[in-house]
Amino acid sequence: MRPSEPVVPEPDPSASRPLQGEGRNEPDDHPDRVLRVAIVPDSFKGSISALEAATAMVRGVREASVASTLDLRTRPMADGGEGTLDALLDAWGVVARTCATTDALGRPVIARYGLSPDGTGVIEAAEANGLPQVSDVPLQPLVADTRGVGRVALTLLDEGAREIILCVGGSATTDGGTGLLAALGARFLDVTGQPLPPGGGSLRALDRIDLTDLHPRAREVTWRVACDVSNPLVGPDGAASVFGPQKGATPADVAVLDASLTRLTGVVAAETGLTIHDRPGMGAAGGIALLLAAVCGAELVAGSTLVAETLGLDVVLDGVDLVLTGEGRFDDQSLHGKVVDAVASRAPAGVPVVVVAGEVCVPVAAMRAHGITAAFATARGPRTLDELTRSALDDITCTTAMVTRLLGL
Amino acid sequence: MRPSEPVVPEPDPSASRPLQGEGRNEPDDHPDRVLRVAIVPDSFKGSISALEAATAMVRGVREASVASTLDLRTRPMADGGEGTLDALLDAWGVVARTCATTDALGRPVIARYGLSPDGTGVIEAAEANGLPQVSDVPLQPLVADTRGVGRVALTLLDEGAREIILCVGGSATTDGGTGLLAALGARFLDVTGQPLPPGGGSLRALDRIDLTDLHPRAREVTWRVACDVSNPLVGPDGAASVFGPQKGATPADVAVLDASLTRLTGVVAAETGLTIHDRPGMGAAGGIALLLAAVCGAELVAGSTLVAETLGLDVVLDGVDLVLTGEGRFDDQSLHGKVVDAVASRAPAGVPVVVVAGEVCVPVAAMRAHGITAAFATARGPRTLDELTRSALDDITCTTAMVTRLLGL
Repeated sequence: MRPSEPVVPEPDPSASRPLQGEGRNEPDDHPDRVLRVAIVPDSFKGSISALEAATAMVRGVREASVASTLDLRTRPMADGGEGTLDALLDAWGVVARTCATTDALGRPVIARYGLSPDGTGVIEAAEANGLPQVSDVPLQPLVADTRGVGRVALTLLDEGAREIILCVGGSATTDGGTGLLAALGARFLDVTGQPLPPGGGSLRALDRIDLTDLHPRAREVTWRVACDVSNPLVGPDGAASVFGPQKGATPADVAVLDASLTRLTGVVAAETGLTIHDRPGMGAAGGIALLLAAVCGAELVAGSTLVAETLGLDVVLDGVDLVLTGEGRFDDQSLHGKVVDAVASRAPAGVPVVVVAGEVCVPVAAMRAHGITAAFATARGPRTLDELTRSALDDITCTTAMVTRLLGL
Repeated sequence: MRPSEPVVPEPDPSASRPLQGEGRNEPDDHPDRVLRVAIVPDSFKGSISALEAATAMVRGVREASVASTLDLRTRPMADGGEGTLDALLDAWGVVARTCATTDALGRPVIARYGLSPDGTGVIEAAEANGLPQVSDVPLQPLVADTRGVGRVALTLLDEGAREIILCVGGSATTDGGTGLLAALGARFLDVTGQPLPPGGGSLRALDRIDLTDLHPRAREVTWRVACDVSNPLVGPDGAASVFGPQKGATPADVAVLDASLTRLTGVVAAETGLTIHDRPGMGAAGGIALLLAAVCGAELVAGSTLVAETLGLDVVLDGVDLVLTGEGRFDDQSLHGKVVDAVASRAPAGVPVVVVAGEVCVPVAAMRAHGITAAFATARGPRTLDELTRSALDDITCTTAMVTRLLGL
């Protein structure tokens, strides 16, 4: 899809700027200068959304800048996990849609999803198959399935989506995406031709996959899966072994699920000739991408890359004087496939890339190696986490103002 | 006195600098550029000394700079209060001297003081008349006196000092400096010609001052008193009323002391023709400067100004690309006569002045009005005061490195 144009707010004549010559050591205003800033934070998890963080940063730049005209390109970011739907909705300028579907245990839920004006749909799988949705009852890792996610996808197909972005992560399921494809019309049969019961546990008995009734548009749309991990589908680093336990799987359940997913890959290979189970990311969200990839040609992409592309980050970053990003905790993980890394790797050469974060745990050498100019924590003194959370917006504004002033922008 | 030359460390070939082209978005090294930085912090009270803070800042600049040659002018600062002696010793390149003297209650103590190679002496009065020195016994505000401070001054006179800087503050005394001058040979007599007993309480009985035996050099040297407050000597804003209670004075004691100081000013006026008791700062440290001013022509100066002049701050700041200062808590007080204000008001126009502090409580508008470009707190995330204190050096280094990188220096 073509990204919408970056948001360029009208110059605000009431924006607080220094009066010329007010201070002892102040640069003069620059009446003819346009300051272009890309404001592209992730959410500060557990504290504020990416949109709130971006808004606080805008205030900081406005408060401190000496430029006469501000071109502040705000683009709340996400990494394919929680907050991605909101980030895309904001960028597209549309509101969330909702549809009735089911959770991982088949109980009714309402799921939010999005559809851009030019036909890109986005699903956060966890709206339907998320672990929190089913945390009110004992976890059932063998029967939890992704049928609810498929029902959201079905809605998007019927609404004419030309492309579907599926954001995974935080799932309660380990079904190889069989539930999702079942919702789109596929049938998973045993040797007697009977459909298997829902969930990953039953897949050991899989004999063949019947695609006769597959939704006619399922193979027409472009599918892209935003993976939050790079694990393979099966084996010791696979979906069942690594993530099964947090979904309630006992060691015995893990063995059953790993055997089930192995059986599934065998049937897929036999029917499609594809051996794709070891692609990086195929182990994300209980293998949810496997059948989408095998049957519908879905592409697996690192979440932050997919979001950056969909949001048109390159357009936002083009020609800016400063790049401001941020997140709750800036640590080593941030440099591997998260928003900050996606932003820094796309920033124009020579432009300062500044991270504003609730906590900064990255040494200077690592920043240097990843194209990050500087990182500032928001705390203005000794603070508890609770205090920092409460003052996050003001602290981000203040830190952003300091960066803007220091750069004389 | 002529300040010593600023410290210009030799270029350190092992200094950690980025390898050229190492990062994605790094400026190239500047093989021919000299980076000049004034590193002039106050102490971080309750945590680290000004020298430690300066050393941590040096490390941060070294770690982050892309310049080929660093001219780092470190000058640990002070505001005339605690730490001033150490700051001057460091600037002069001499070690502390000590002499045997007495505390505010006449008990033996060893006091540190300093003498520069060209004859400027410095005394921290609290080394002799400090409140902590006498906190092991019940406070005796009526008899506590400054004779011990005078004994240190006497030593400096005998050692040939041409100028004496007296730093006051934190005192246990309210004697108008009578004890100090008594140590130099003055006698404070009642109507019968008998010397008064020590302390401010006895001064109500003062009849005349006998200077016959005053040390011959007492009036030859230049005296400058670094005041930490601007209160007048007597009255509701005076030394007894405002500071008496923290020295143990009951309301009745306060009345006695205020009457005593009033009597003292009357005798001084009668004998010298000078009415100087309402000069700003005359109420500092129990009126310690009164007799020095009346008898020896001592000048009262704001502490941070006196220290800045004595340290040759203008020479340190001349031609720099960046000014780094800091303190434990950067608040409204900092902008009125403290180190940060003294530094910012002397910084060359157009040069960034950056405050690194344990806590930052100053709004952007006030920074702007006082010539401060930006202020960054050292906390790298949610931290208790204890945690911040323990990691202060590393945090200052890190924050300094961020500032250096952001400025591309």
